[in-house]
Amino acid sequence: PDLESGTAAVQRQRQLTKPAGALGRLEEIAEWLATWQGRHPPQLERPRTAVFAGNHGIAAHGVSAYPQEVTRQMVRNFIDGGGAVNQLCAEVDADLRVYELALEEPTEDFTQVAAMSEEDCARAMAYGMMVVEEGFDVMALGEMGIANTTSAAAICCALFGGEPRDWAGPGSGLDEEGVKRKVDVVAAGLSRHAGKLDDPLEVLRRLGGLEIAAIVGSILACRLARTPVLLDGFACTAAAAVLYRIDPRLLDHCMAAHISAERGHRPLLEAIGKRPLLDLDMRLGEASGATLAISLLKAACACHVGMATFAEAEVSRRT
Amino acid sequence: PDLESGTAAVQRQRQLTKPAGALGRLEEIAEWLATWQGRHPPQLERPRTAVFAGNHGIAAHGVSAYPQEVTRQMVRNFIDGGGAVNQLCAEVDADLRVYELALEEPTEDFTQVAAMSEEDCARAMAYGMMVVEEGFDVMALGEMGIANTTSAAAICCALFGGEPRDWAGPGSGLDEEGVKRKVDVVAAGLSRHAGKLDDPLEVLRRLGGLEIAAIVGSILACRLARTPVLLDGFACTAAAAVLYRIDPRLLDHCMAAHISAERGHRPLLEAIGKRPLLDLDMRLGEASGATLAISLLKAACACHVGMATFAEAEVSRRT
Repeated sequence: PDLESGTAAVQRQRQLTKPAGALGRLEEIAEWLATWQGRHPPQLERPRTAVFAGNHGIAAHGVSAYPQEVTRQMVRNFIDGGGAVNQLCAEVDADLRVYELALEEPTEDFTQVAAMSEEDCARAMAYGMMVVEEGFDVMALGEMGIANTTSAAAICCALFGGEPRDWAGPGSGLDEEGVKRKVDVVAAGLSRHAGKLDDPLEVLRRLGGLEIAAIVGSILACRLARTPVLLDGFACTAAAAVLYRIDPRLLDHCMAAHISAERGHRPLLEAIGKRPLLDLDMRLGEASGATLAISLLKAACACHVGMATFAEAEVSRRT
Repeated sequence: PDLESGTAAVQRQRQLTKPAGALGRLEEIAEWLATWQGRHPPQLERPRTAVFAGNHGIAAHGVSAYPQEVTRQMVRNFIDGGGAVNQLCAEVDADLRVYELALEEPTEDFTQVAAMSEEDCARAMAYGMMVVEEGFDVMALGEMGIANTTSAAAICCALFGGEPRDWAGPGSGLDEEGVKRKVDVVAAGLSRHAGKLDDPLEVLRRLGGLEIAAIVGSILACRLARTPVLLDGFACTAAAAVLYRIDPRLLDHCMAAHISAERGHRPLLEAIGKRPLLDLDMRLGEASGATLAISLLKAACACHVGMATFAEAEVSRRT
């Protein structure tokens, strides 16, 4: 973190033509961007959105309202420009990248064995790190992966405790019976790996997924690249939670873009101490909430950079 | 309202490549815009932001952290492009208009007499109506007026009951003693006009302000012009509440853009049954929250119009 840039941002806020603090979280955003971009003023000209896609062995248990082939079909839809994330990227001039992680080779069924071998998990993390380039002003991270909210629920339960039913929700639209199946799959996974879940990276390897591991890597690499991160919904935030459990400070360059309607996201955000920027009942994934929040970051920068000071505008200060 | 267009929007949402409802309030926005713009698909190419400025006799009681001259100075700042609202308008390509309502002639002190004569109040409402032009896709309404959160608190207390301290907060940054003075001024106003506050328009005339009356007029005119409205913070929403008290349906073409940090805004939004789109601790007024929310409307339209359908993208539907 560049505390000098953060302090410069705070000092400029005080001089702008508004009562102190009146722009609320837009001021917090400007200070956060300055601190983690390492420059004052902060900029938001080059945002990037990255969507990682992976498939999950547990999909065979019927824990999603959609068949597994939809992961690949939706990746194709993103490439063709037809997804929600494409339209949202266009609105904020974000560069969209979609990364497939071996969709034809889903992870193993974590109710039986570890979802990933050490090598596969490490390789997915490394892949997520490598795709991070220098020169972007923010990275909006998200995912696509049929059944990955089940994986995310298992990760959260392993990292933070509670019951599977606290973390498992309808995802893309499961009925009550489906949610019950999902709860059972999470419980079976936790039971299968009991005693081996003390290390957060082992939680990731045993219960996670390739796209989730890649997001973990990307979050770390963004920090080194001085690129602040916007976290998307439940599955993406579960990836971040792995790092939080290693050291909470590893997420200081990340903001929660939104709170999703998926059941586990609220307790998860509370567990990692992040207040979301948006609360719009979204639950789509694919970095849609994170990309939408880029517009708030752009607005925060625009106000911070463009507003007149009291002196410039000859406006009287408070009495 | 054009229910046919609203229904067309609902039907299209069902075909887009996402689980039903997964875009949350972005879907609600698209349906609302279609209904009140009277067309499908809805558009958000031409947004306008209107800021009405007025001065208040009660400012003499020291109910603001800033001197009255700041109203005029900030209007000058908006014209020169230095305000927060200018930067926010630039981000969403909104056309900004600033309307002064006789800044050299503040309203009367409502602790003594009615703030406005019938003629002045009607003229301000008519002015607010007249400035509404056809052809805008949304109108973000806001205000600038030193001491106007005191007027807003008095209006809310008269319309919805409760105690003055429930509605009067620090505004632009009053200390505790200042808030106490403000509460006393609200109480004195309510007592002075007791027995004459049954008619919402009388509440507006006796306790309101010229910019607040102009906003009332604009909200009505926007409805006739098929222009949906984004309401800004506490003072702007208090203007809307006058119409709500006449008939709640008069606000069906309005959305609450955000919830401000000012004390009275939360109970006010609850009283008029509006859920805010944004919650960012902003409390600046000048249509800043309403203008920021335009970015959400643009995103909602972009998704609604640009996303592929399941059939177009050849994505499997739910199992």
